[in-house]
Amino acid sequence: MISEKMKTLVAGSSAIRAMFEDGVRLAQKYGAENVFDFSLGNPNLEPPESVRQAVIDVLAEDSPTLVHGYMDNCGYPDVRQKVAESINRRFGTAFSKDNIVMTVGAAGGLNVIFNTLMNPGDEVITFAPYFGEYKSYAANCHAVLKAVPADTSSFQPNLAELEKMIGPKTRIVLINSPNNPTGVIYSEETIVSLSALLERKQKELGTDIYLVADEPYRELAYDGIEVPYVTRHYKNAIVGYSWSKSLSLPGERIGYLLIPDSVADFEDVRAAVSTAVRIMGFVNAPSLLQRAVAKCLDECADIDFYDKNRKALYEGLTSAGYECVYPQGAFYMFVKTPVDDDKAFCERAKNDFRLLLVPGSAFGCSGYVRIAYCVSPDTIRRSMPAFKALMESYTK
Amino acid sequence: MISEKMKTLVAGSSAIRAMFEDGVRLAQKYGAENVFDFSLGNPNLEPPESVRQAVIDVLAEDSPTLVHGYMDNCGYPDVRQKVAESINRRFGTAFSKDNIVMTVGAAGGLNVIFNTLMNPGDEVITFAPYFGEYKSYAANCHAVLKAVPADTSSFQPNLAELEKMIGPKTRIVLINSPNNPTGVIYSEETIVSLSALLERKQKELGTDIYLVADEPYRELAYDGIEVPYVTRHYKNAIVGYSWSKSLSLPGERIGYLLIPDSVADFEDVRAAVSTAVRIMGFVNAPSLLQRAVAKCLDECADIDFYDKNRKALYEGLTSAGYECVYPQGAFYMFVKTPVDDDKAFCERAKNDFRLLLVPGSAFGCSGYVRIAYCVSPDTIRRSMPAFKALMESYTK
Repeated sequence: MISEKMKTLVAGSSAIRAMFEDGVRLAQKYGAENVFDFSLGNPNLEPPESVRQAVIDVLAEDSPTLVHGYMDNCGYPDVRQKVAESINRRFGTAFSKDNIVMTVGAAGGLNVIFNTLMNPGDEVITFAPYFGEYKSYAANCHAVLKAVPADTSSFQPNLAELEKMIGPKTRIVLINSPNNPTGVIYSEETIVSLSALLERKQKELGTDIYLVADEPYRELAYDGIEVPYVTRHYKNAIVGYSWSKSLSLPGERIGYLLIPDSVADFEDVRAAVSTAVRIMGFVNAPSLLQRAVAKCLDECADIDFYDKNRKALYEGLTSAGYECVYPQGAFYMFVKTPVDDDKAFCERAKNDFRLLLVPGSAFGCSGYVRIAYCVSPDTIRRSMPAFKALMESYTK
Repeated sequence: MISEKMKTLVAGSSAIRAMFEDGVRLAQKYGAENVFDFSLGNPNLEPPESVRQAVIDVLAEDSPTLVHGYMDNCGYPDVRQKVAESINRRFGTAFSKDNIVMTVGAAGGLNVIFNTLMNPGDEVITFAPYFGEYKSYAANCHAVLKAVPADTSSFQPNLAELEKMIGPKTRIVLINSPNNPTGVIYSEETIVSLSALLERKQKELGTDIYLVADEPYRELAYDGIEVPYVTRHYKNAIVGYSWSKSLSLPGERIGYLLIPDSVADFEDVRAAVSTAVRIMGFVNAPSLLQRAVAKCLDECADIDFYDKNRKALYEGLTSAGYECVYPQGAFYMFVKTPVDDDKAFCERAKNDFRLLLVPGSAFGCSGYVRIAYCVSPDTIRRSMPAFKALMESYTK
């Protein structure tokens, strides 16, 4: 007998497993090259060659007991200092190692900060559409995730609605820009307005409201668009980062939390985060990879690859009659379905056209589908007739 | 404001931090070589050379997208199959990849299985003295850790007391052999009796009681003593393993859960564990290290080093008048304090003799101290006069 919580969560994740299994079945029937899998946010780019060299250099330069041993639960001090300095160079900030906690990816970091800041029954508010796992992370500490309904005209955050939803139990407002699943980037103006709103609500309610920015896609911003750095605009801002996408290292589980001195109860938060990292079972971020990424802080996977996919897919889909906000970052497109029922649309896409897509309802926003374009350009090119025929099956 | 749960946990861990800080202060005052730190279970042995070579070979042999990419949340199928086959060779079992879930160390694995099997209010029972973090792992899923009082004559599990404590809410009985902090190993006879007791209680109560064996110290068994494999004796047995100690890789966070087909509701448990790995924020065990340890399954750090320390420390301490059950495994000695107040004893040891020890009360068993002998032989040799003088300060 498994726990009640896990029963619910397993049921929720069985839809994804079912799609994966359907994909395998279709590939067996029609050939793998005739199944177009746009369902997974799994980078298909190789990490930069410098990552391989960094791992080899770490093994050659540092003693094995240092490289593979325990360190402070927050991570190696020298690695944290290098990460802080890299952030300072890029964003004009003044952080030190004491502001950085190395984490088991962004998912590990979010769980740690949720657990640190929220009591059972507390609330985290995010903006629909949102990465579905946020709900589980909140459930892990018996907190509640609430979602501001999507502004489907732009997929920018609806601040007026947020203001109505913030209450005395609101501990965290969670943003994710560049966004999964829409690819939109929140402008500096938006972050300034959001910060002003949160300052106002903090005063009004006499509480601390932390703004947590989940930034695994920070480096995946196109057309030279800058992703504003939230700590420059709001005192109680915390950043969760991961090298999963920027260095194509999703399996390595390596990221960090940035916790500025300016956050409310900084010393307590830092001590609690350090303890949470340990007692939640992470103990520390993987040691060899901590040291390796510290050597690659100015590196990035070949973002141009995703950008070309973005343009090709957007052009193809809009030519075929699909409606979509042009994504500015990440590697997702959030496309309006020609019918309200996005699950039925995905079923037809899969069964009749061998297109694997994820229904928007999995992101708290039905009537849309997410298309992950971290695939080969060839997959995009060859899938276009299928997308066209899928649309025609509704319009003709 | 941090969460209430973390407030309690931070307060609990501040004692360890205080000791660490005292150690730094003493080292500055008296010189690092004159402070004898026996407080940490941090292997000071280098990993076998084969580990370094395995990492380099993985980078050379496998594609970077495979090595650093996402895989099944349970781990790479080929790695899991190799781990299963290695267990089968050693213990005459018949496991496959479907019985192995790669985890972020043993701590990650225990948190995953606790979360999978226990509802809030459920109970896990272990035997005092026990690794203090078990209590936090239980608290993480709002379950309750209960400890069977220590049998201080042998530090073997007191099964008669266990029987009295098992009730309808008992979901897990947790054992740890070789044991932290006592170093004792549970005999095959003990495991057989424990299994029979659990079978009987399952029938009586109409519940499933899982026996979870936390085995990070499995390979650290001396004098040719065999550590019985629990799945051979009990159907509902689950093993948590880590390469932290056996390959001296504690910073890498790499281990596994073994879940036999024979456990109650196997398919549900497996699906829930796979989901829990993901949604608790681990996502998967670090990928490069998964592939590297799969190449080192027959390797082990130089256990003889610890064995020599064990003998030297035991002989020195008993000659100085200390009482201690001779440890058969791990790298800890659990020594009776000449006064009841083990915390006061540790304070005197630290302040007057520069010996850093952990009070037994941190392991749910006061009147004892834990001495971790994963230190240099020189530290043991040079600390002996201090241990002797410490004892004499009580007896003379």
